[in-house]
Amino acid sequence: MQKLKDRILNEGKVFPGNIVKVDSFLNHRLDTQLLYEMGQAISHAFPKPDVILTIEASGIALAMMTAIHGNIPVVFAKKGSSKLKEQDAYQTQVHSTTKDVDFTVSVARPFLLKNQKVLIIDDFLAHGEAVFGLMDLVKQAQAEVIGVGIAVEKGFLEGGQRLRDAHIPLVSLAIVDDLSEGRITLR
Amino acid sequence: MQKLKDRILNEGKVFPGNIVKVDSFLNHRLDTQLLYEMGQAISHAFPKPDVILTIEASGIALAMMTAIHGNIPVVFAKKGSSKLKEQDAYQTQVHSTTKDVDFTVSVARPFLLKNQKVLIIDDFLAHGEAVFGLMDLVKQAQAEVIGVGIAVEKGFLEGGQRLRDAHIPLVSLAIVDDLSEGRITLR
Repeated sequence: MQKLKDRILNEGKVFPGNIVKVDSFLNHRLDTQLLYEMGQAISHAFPKPDVILTIEASGIALAMMTAIHGNIPVVFAKKGSSKLKEQDAYQTQVHSTTKDVDFTVSVARPFLLKNQKVLIIDDFLAHGEAVFGLMDLVKQAQAEVIGVGIAVEKGFLEGGQRLRDAHIPLVSLAIVDDLSEGRITLR
Repeated sequence: MQKLKDRILNEGKVFPGNIVKVDSFLNHRLDTQLLYEMGQAISHAFPKPDVILTIEASGIALAMMTAIHGNIPVVFAKKGSSKLKEQDAYQTQVHSTTKDVDFTVSVARPFLLKNQKVLIIDDFLAHGEAVFGLMDLVKQAQAEVIGVGIAVEKGFLEGGQRLRDAHIPLVSLAIVDDLSEGRITLR
């Protein structure tokens, strides 16, 4: 998506550890019009799902902006040690490579139903840990992942390839191919 | 807002400690159409702000749905110990009464500017700690709070009164007046 690519090139900031910050429009300050168009692009790329699944906090905005194109409910998985018991929630462990910690991700059972068609949305795709965690929750619920919509994929990490290898339809609105020497190169 | 009130009465669940859970449409599963209309109601109740300020995670959806009625940027304050240094971010301490812990709330300085008109949005208003924390960040930035929009106010706690005493325009789409004996009474 050209508009997003332009913003990444103009405003994205590169930090050590292959981190690209897009705080000014996607992760901290949210550009409403841009997110609306990003949601529209993702919405057009997939058949209509029964539910959109994302993860708090920074996936919520894009999920909502995708959901309004078709009035689809959104469920956001909760991070951290939940007080929910196993009989009340689907739970899985996700490893955060950036922070090098494991955390629990959970969705209350009534909000993911058997045979529902689920579209997974997140802002970033790097190693794919968060998305595969969400896919595990969908599997536990015996629901079906119809696709994954991502704002920014780090094309030099394996998350995208893992999804393609698993034949999961993936739409990344922008793919960063290189961040070396502090310069952002997009695909 | 009648539609929200009906959902609270039909789906809200009361837990010990004056907690009312609205997970099925506002806090975990998000009812997109309802949130769209809630955002519209809040948007119509205030003059157009320069920026909408909320706090991660559960304020983000309502903030976005308010923001699309007028294409207003959203900034969500981040919780937890931030790596941002004081010269980079406005920071304040917020006490969570529910969890009985203090946490840091921060906004990067470039995203709150002097003299900006700021509309604060959050899902719940109880003791008012989160909203007064956000107001402190706005004050540090020498910006101006034009109002506070809330989904559910707990009318039996002091947050709403504190805001009214401070002459801050407050719009709560639903006010819970009583939760005793497991029954929800709305104003």
